[in-house]
Amino acid sequence: MNVAIAGLGLIGGSFAKAIAARTRHRVTGYDISADVERRALDAGLIDGAGLNTFDGADLTLIALYPGAAAEFMRVNARRFKPGSIVVDMCGVKRYIVKAARGLFGEGVTYIGGHPMAGREYSGFDASRTELFDGASMILTPDETVGPDKLERARNFFLALGFGGVTLTTPDRHDEIIAFTSQMAHIVSSGYAQNPIARNFSGFSAGSFADMTRVAKLDENMWTELFLLNADYLTEQLDILVENLAGFRERIAARDAEGLKSMLRRGREIKEYLMESEK
Amino acid sequence: MNVAIAGLGLIGGSFAKAIAARTRHRVTGYDISADVERRALDAGLIDGAGLNTFDGADLTLIALYPGAAAEFMRVNARRFKPGSIVVDMCGVKRYIVKAARGLFGEGVTYIGGHPMAGREYSGFDASRTELFDGASMILTPDETVGPDKLERARNFFLALGFGGVTLTTPDRHDEIIAFTSQMAHIVSSGYAQNPIARNFSGFSAGSFADMTRVAKLDENMWTELFLLNADYLTEQLDILVENLAGFRERIAARDAEGLKSMLRRGREIKEYLMESEK
Repeated sequence: MNVAIAGLGLIGGSFAKAIAARTRHRVTGYDISADVERRALDAGLIDGAGLNTFDGADLTLIALYPGAAAEFMRVNARRFKPGSIVVDMCGVKRYIVKAARGLFGEGVTYIGGHPMAGREYSGFDASRTELFDGASMILTPDETVGPDKLERARNFFLALGFGGVTLTTPDRHDEIIAFTSQMAHIVSSGYAQNPIARNFSGFSAGSFADMTRVAKLDENMWTELFLLNADYLTEQLDILVENLAGFRERIAARDAEGLKSMLRRGREIKEYLMESEK
Repeated sequence: MNVAIAGLGLIGGSFAKAIAARTRHRVTGYDISADVERRALDAGLIDGAGLNTFDGADLTLIALYPGAAAEFMRVNARRFKPGSIVVDMCGVKRYIVKAARGLFGEGVTYIGGHPMAGREYSGFDASRTELFDGASMILTPDETVGPDKLERARNFFLALGFGGVTLTTPDRHDEIIAFTSQMAHIVSSGYAQNPIARNFSGFSAGSFADMTRVAKLDENMWTELFLLNADYLTEQLDILVENLAGFRERIAARDAEGLKSMLRRGREIKEYLMESEK
């Protein structure tokens, strides 16, 4: 089929590469940077470039920041042909699903999506064929999405290397993602900002490196994502800060038993998660 | 030379394995578990077992939890022969260095130590020849440690695969380790304890996995370490919670510029650290 990708950054570029390497679909792409479009063309990753190539797409992937994705859909809603599917890749789903509502012409199927994959680098140069290997592709289809369209989307993502397709609601997505991804970026960033961080050569532990890995983030994208999910994110932050206060209290009180039992609880949850991931 | 190791768990066992694989030293070991001693003997990692083997050691490594290490040194202080070196491996240094003061006979050199390596598994079965490869070995020698003894210790650790030896004071060690290692374990454990953690199959992100990796910890050891470093640890926790509160405030106020600038600061620090580690 004909696949069109809007935005050839880390996510869109990785889709282009995975499609080129693993499927026989015809792919076209659009990027705000003409240079990126040209390089994707030169590399043989896309067969055509520019907005006009989207008119004939059977499947359109929108891999832009949330605000830009909403704008792109609004401006181009009438380009998408009847029978085609449009999937956005935004990391927040309530906002974008709401923005998409009622935009498209008859016969166009919109599905919210979010590939659970990333890197602490962004842009086309950071994109990789293998980015999605084994990852989960989240989809938030509403009741208007027919089973045939959903099946077509699912098969498309599985063929690219995704380990599975997870169906959920925009609301549930946003609640969970606040915890599994967004807050991890905030904690990483906050952790790196303790003043002592700049001066400890020879003391670096693996735990610190892991803890701060995603502090190397794109602040423009994450600011958008955080503010569009502020309710769930602050809720999770409040719980975490309460947990940390519980630790602090036990440490300050030299409460060995209380501290040990709280650490045990954390270990047991982590072991449960490791077990259930197998 | 003759090396004796007290405690054949993750750290002591890894020392035994690295010594056996990479040096020609004669090694003996003691463990509270006779079964572990026998298995280390059977595997050819140690040439002798039991406390009486420590009398002839030129170098004694004490790889026990802090309280047990202090007790071991107190009970066995008079075993160590003149001219020999004793190094403990405890993750807190003020406590153990203080406990060691004045214990040993004339001519015995004590040096506080802390190998910056670990795994989220413990015990002899988790020990590995390569555990210390490229890691930093921290030593906290006081003014009584002669340069010849320090040089002998340094050469010993480098021969095992350590990437470098870092000299510091017990106080500075404890302050930095509260941040680079101890607090990371608390945050990991606290993060895993948000109620939503138990129910998000299909949403697991790499950032979450990294964030909670060390939640799988040995709560007995870490409780000891945390309580022996309570002052510095609570200080670091207070700063982190303040950082998180700063994020929360900006998110709740939908302050895009303030949020972006705070995320930028975290990114820049992380990039600086990545650059300086090269």
